[in-house]
Amino acid sequence: MTKTNAGRFFEDYRLGQVIRHAVPRTLAEGERALYHALYPARHALYSSDEFAAACGLESSPMDDLLAFHMVFGKTVPDISLNAVANLGYAQGRWLAPVWPGDTLRAESQVIGLRQNSNGASGVVWVHTRGLNQMDQVVLDYVRWVMVRKRDPDAPAPDAVVPDLAPAVPPEALIVPEGLDFTGYDFELAGEPHRWGDYALGEIIDHVDGVTIEEAEHMLATRLWQNTAKVHFDATFRDDGRRLIYGGHVISMARALSFNGLANAQMIVALNGGAHANPCFAGDTIRAWSEVLDKAPTGAPGVGAIRLRLVAHKGDAGDRALRDEGGKYAPQVLLDLDYWALMPL
Amino acid sequence: MTKTNAGRFFEDYRLGQVIRHAVPRTLAEGERALYHALYPARHALYSSDEFAAACGLESSPMDDLLAFHMVFGKTVPDISLNAVANLGYAQGRWLAPVWPGDTLRAESQVIGLRQNSNGASGVVWVHTRGLNQMDQVVLDYVRWVMVRKRDPDAPAPDAVVPDLAPAVPPEALIVPEGLDFTGYDFELAGEPHRWGDYALGEIIDHVDGVTIEEAEHMLATRLWQNTAKVHFDATFRDDGRRLIYGGHVISMARALSFNGLANAQMIVALNGGAHANPCFAGDTIRAWSEVLDKAPTGAPGVGAIRLRLVAHKGDAGDRALRDEGGKYAPQVLLDLDYWALMPL
Amino acid sequence: MTKTNAGRFFEDYRLGQVIRHAVPRTLAEGERALYHALYPARHALYSSDEFAAACGLESSPMDDLLAFHMVFGKTVPDISLNAVANLGYAQGRWLAPVWPGDTLRAESQVIGLRQNSNGASGVVWVHTRGLNQMDQVVLDYVRWVMVRKRDPDAPAPDAVVPDLAPAVPPEALIVPEGLDFTGYDFELAGEPHRWGDYALGEIIDHVDGVTIEEAEHMLATRLWQNTAKVHFDATFRDDGRRLIYGGHVISMARALSFNGLANAQMIVALNGGAHANPCFAGDTIRAWSEVLDKAPTGAPGVGAIRLRLVAHKGDAGDRALRDEGGKYAPQVLLDLDYWALMPL
Repeated sequence: MTKTNAGRFFEDYRLGQVIRHAVPRTLAEGERALYHALYPARHALYSSDEFAAACGLESSPMDDLLAFHMVFGKTVPDISLNAVANLGYAQGRWLAPVWPGDTLRAESQVIGLRQNSNGASGVVWVHTRGLNQMDQVVLDYVRWVMVRKRDPDAPAPDAVVPDLAPAVPPEALIVPEGLDFTGYDFELAGEPHRWGDYALGEIIDHVDGVTIEEAEHMLATRLWQNTAKVHFDATFRDDGRRLIYGGHVISMARALSFNGLANAQMIVALNGGAHANPCFAGDTIRAWSEVLDKAPTGAPGVGAIRLRLVAHKGDAGDRALRDEGGKYAPQVLLDLDYWALMPL
Repeated sequence: MTKTNAGRFFEDYRLGQVIRHAVPRTLAEGERALYHALYPARHALYSSDEFAAACGLESSPMDDLLAFHMVFGKTVPDISLNAVANLGYAQGRWLAPVWPGDTLRAESQVIGLRQNSNGASGVVWVHTRGLNQMDQVVLDYVRWVMVRKRDPDAPAPDAVVPDLAPAVPPEALIVPEGLDFTGYDFELAGEPHRWGDYALGEIIDHVDGVTIEEAEHMLATRLWQNTAKVHFDATFRDDGRRLIYGGHVISMARALSFNGLANAQMIVALNGGAHANPCFAGDTIRAWSEVLDKAPTGAPGVGAIRLRLVAHKGDAGDRALRDEGGKYAPQVLLDLDYWALMPL
Repeated sequence: MTKTNAGRFFEDYRLGQVIRHAVPRTLAEGERALYHALYPARHALYSSDEFAAACGLESSPMDDLLAFHMVFGKTVPDISLNAVANLGYAQGRWLAPVWPGDTLRAESQVIGLRQNSNGASGVVWVHTRGLNQMDQVVLDYVRWVMVRKRDPDAPAPDAVVPDLAPAVPPEALIVPEGLDFTGYDFELAGEPHRWGDYALGEIIDHVDGVTIEEAEHMLATRLWQNTAKVHFDATFRDDGRRLIYGGHVISMARALSFNGLANAQMIVALNGGAHANPCFAGDTIRAWSEVLDKAPTGAPGVGAIRLRLVAHKGDAGDRALRDEGGKYAPQVLLDLDYWALMPL
């Protein structure tokens, strides 16, 4: 009997099933430095212990998306090794900062199943939680993927499609304990624009572009212990190209959004997201954002801003996301919807 | 007189000579994170402080092969700068874990010399020890290399060929102090297979492949302070290719072997190894293992497993290692023989 | 109104103006490890806590040039985003070591302005200081750049050209507190050559070469939070090439200079420097040094050596730096003039 992990197929999932993912991981200064080498990440709260302390935190936490990737990566061998497509995210929340020295692990519960009409695959919804060494949930999200069946004749489960919120409501956002932006240093943070300066519907073109390299996306994807073959093995696809982990595009776009959103310091919720088209080495990634919503928070000086973050390759054109048939335009790589915290 | 290091030639070595290698190096969280970005390393004991603590260690030590590369790298300017070939390893043992914050240095003693019949080169055997800041030996191995002569007319030394064990006997394996696998969490470690589940002669195909990039092997090789020109300078070889440090292949193959050997947690001995063919950027590395031996250890819940780890590029074919003439098949990159510790 | 940073143009600078640069950055073990993976850096004082302690320091400080790049990178969005050319450095001094855990920020004062005769651009001189979390100045240098005008009709400022020293005088060099080379271990450091062994005018060919990769220079440049588009976006230049940050060449050349100058442990002053020609991925960098001056210091066993460090691609030819017209020869990448500390 083979000892290697062939991954789960659609018929292996059961509603309500809880999967404890391997391998726990201790995060420290090294992961932080690599994150800042792999992405042009400059949000001051994640860059400087002094800046974080002046904002009421004990020190600079690990980057929000670093925590996300680390939790996501653990789920790959159990959830998406045989995935045909990563269909969406919902109800994601950052519940507590991750500090250097913390050890993260992840658990997922199957909360939805629906076989496709072709009988060859199905959609699996999982609710994933990232936990630290004190069993505190630091991150929480729903993801759904299309997974192949091993045996096309395996019976279809009863279809259960979870009822997911289109966005995390502002009152459900968790502001890290102690966070206080009343003494916020806009000069050190890099931009003068505060929460009140952003208008609903406003578009921000983030100007900068980064051309993607094979070595960089593989370093990143390995760091998150994401093992999907398609990211590493150039012989896996017929065209000899390595598909870039969608999270690499998320982090690149978020880091590029510093230019215009330098004060959108901390991501606290992931409302939704689509990896619209595949990204490959040699693509030059650019990004633009749209202000979707704004809300106060109870924390001193802290507002919440809901942003659409779009990553694209080549020219953004007229920023049309979709064609007439509702399909994503070919240059769009990512369409992400998140809440961030910003000084009032 | 030139101040640069031209490296030692065959006639510069004396039997019994002890060489203290430069440059000592303090290892910390940064080296660990880079190791986990450069290789798909996921063995839980080297990934999580919590997992390591549950196995009786104070925290997660530095990866076994990271310690090996760091010691090996120091020897390069003194031993293999003028090497024609890296011929073999023997009697390697990991004697104590390396912890973040430790400073490693290395010493080698010349234990064998034999001039080749052509008079242009000779074989040098060295016994290398890696020591920490408390002068504790953490790693110990024999390596032999073929080294060019500066002057073909230099007299040949008396031939002394050390008597090397074909493998480290199981009773000589050192289990890290405190290691206890009786409460081992197989779910968090990633696989259910325990020591008793592996049969002598069993073959494990590790399934995954990684396509090698220039930037990655150079980052790794620099990190170990290995200075051999051939790894970095594309103008050094006539064909314009940079030869990949053999240790990069060892670490890549060992990390790939997680898939099927996730519980072979710690390497404790290196019985032998051959870099069968050169590896270049663009090659896709795969690996398979064969169970060569098994032995109990005195430590609670801890068994030892002796494994052959073969890395190859392209297709493994029928897993024939050698052709009829006894020469390694062209797709074979590495043939390594080691002992690892595994939960019973 | 756009919220992104278009950078300052020549007419935006005022004499005496002080700019506090974003974003402060905490440096730790991760940045150190990355520096040692990106460059073949092996100077023992920056490699080993034990070696540094034996030289009177509390532990191994962050590499001298790592501190420089981190300070320099912060100035880019304010000083050189619209720069046509990076013209020179002067009066650079390392005033205090940077330790893991320190947070650096940077400030620049405009000390000179001179519009070019074409009216389309001008030269800006800034005096930049890097400060740690205790507001202690750790690094201090003058840089001048040619910056485009936004509006060619903007009036020219009164020309003020600062009076800059051709070199930092030896009596102005700052030796780190406690540094003592009287018990220096030349064997562990890697070379026997001491301060007294170097003659004025002596040339050292550093022998080794490194072929540059896109992924590596981008990782480095991002790590220093240097955001200049030209380093990252392959579509920015007409020729589709990414210009390599000049500091990448500086660090590569300095690391290569280990071979022959292993004991030039710490850079303490930057007298001047020119990025003679652009560097691109695929170039193979080599380096040579010339001893320009020597001076004692008050510290025990510590001498100062002034070195010219030249990086070139391809063949150095006859080491002619300039052609008959005084223009740098096309293979020269860098011409740097610095002071380092060396054991007597």
